[in-house]
Amino acid sequence: MFFSPAVEELVSALRCLPGVGPRSARRMALYLLEKNRDGGRELSRVMAEAMEKVGNCRQCRTLNESELCHICAHSGRDRSTLCIVESPADVHAIEQTSSYRGLYFVLMGHLSPIDGIGPEELGIDELLALADELSLEEVILANNTTVEGEATAWYIAEQLQDRGVAISRIAHGVPVGGELEYVDGGTLSHAFNGRQRIQRST
Amino acid sequence: MFFSPAVEELVSALRCLPGVGPRSARRMALYLLEKNRDGGRELSRVMAEAMEKVGNCRQCRTLNESELCHICAHSGRDRSTLCIVESPADVHAIEQTSSYRGLYFVLMGHLSPIDGIGPEELGIDELLALADELSLEEVILANNTTVEGEATAWYIAEQLQDRGVAISRIAHGVPVGGELEYVDGGTLSHAFNGRQRIQRST
Repeated sequence: MFFSPAVEELVSALRCLPGVGPRSARRMALYLLEKNRDGGRELSRVMAEAMEKVGNCRQCRTLNESELCHICAHSGRDRSTLCIVESPADVHAIEQTSSYRGLYFVLMGHLSPIDGIGPEELGIDELLALADELSLEEVILANNTTVEGEATAWYIAEQLQDRGVAISRIAHGVPVGGELEYVDGGTLSHAFNGRQRIQRST
Repeated sequence: MFFSPAVEELVSALRCLPGVGPRSARRMALYLLEKNRDGGRELSRVMAEAMEKVGNCRQCRTLNESELCHICAHSGRDRSTLCIVESPADVHAIEQTSSYRGLYFVLMGHLSPIDGIGPEELGIDELLALADELSLEEVILANNTTVEGEATAWYIAEQLQDRGVAISRIAHGVPVGGELEYVDGGTLSHAFNGRQRIQRST
């Protein structure tokens, strides 16, 4: 220990941030103390407030401090389509494309029995109730393509099967701008299985 | 804006940390909110406390919450040698080598007239008073080898000149394990100018 206890404590508390190792934490602590105490005070205040105030949207479960998030509350969204994602970051990524106008349901994770995460933790019951309430036409499964994500997607598809709603999975294939040579085998075989016939315009 | 106001505010407050851009800030905010609220609360508390409590050591000016830092207060340190550095991080780097047993004086910066940082901001008067008080034998200038660091080192050397104390500058040259081929010209010419005669042991 080379710094004073309060400084060392700040360095070790900063390490709870993802991607912050001992060196970055030291750099951050010294930067705040030497050059930006006001920024540090503000960050501390905003962080404490967010930790207490932010809960989940009553309808889609995304992180939100009011009862309904701005997407669920927006009157212009298409209420017949529901996109299921694993996290608020996924909502962010999809919203940035501006290509989807329906609603979301955020699982806040994926099925993972070892970690004690089952259908209840992912709010599957709320999802089914919402599907009935909204009289949905389509549910788009946008879970990650990890083993757990796929398993969760198939589990949800099974639960929704008898509800007369179209269920789809987002396409997996070669990324736009990607070169075949550098694409992994799993993605390539997905790309072949999911091939689409080109429509002749004449 | 895709997240709720409290989440967006946390993301933008996190950007005051050095090396944290919009993506990392988003990742940090979502991680804390989704997976580690206790860590976030603890970090917020420790940060607020450090911002208020941590001041400077009365003697060496390093970041410290008590009157004297543990190095200045340590009875086993050599009180005839003073090493002058720019920041607490430099003290940390030198202490990790365990090769220096004297005291430090931390300037908390370097001379930079454009930013309004003159001798007073660097505590040069306190440094001179300390030099007299400790009846030093040697002052080692370990300022950075930037233009400002060099200028600050020479300014301090000038101020100390008439006090009958040996003044030295840490050696600059090829880093240990470095290959000549990859060392820049400035460092190489320093290495030649600072060459040391090899003592024949017989």
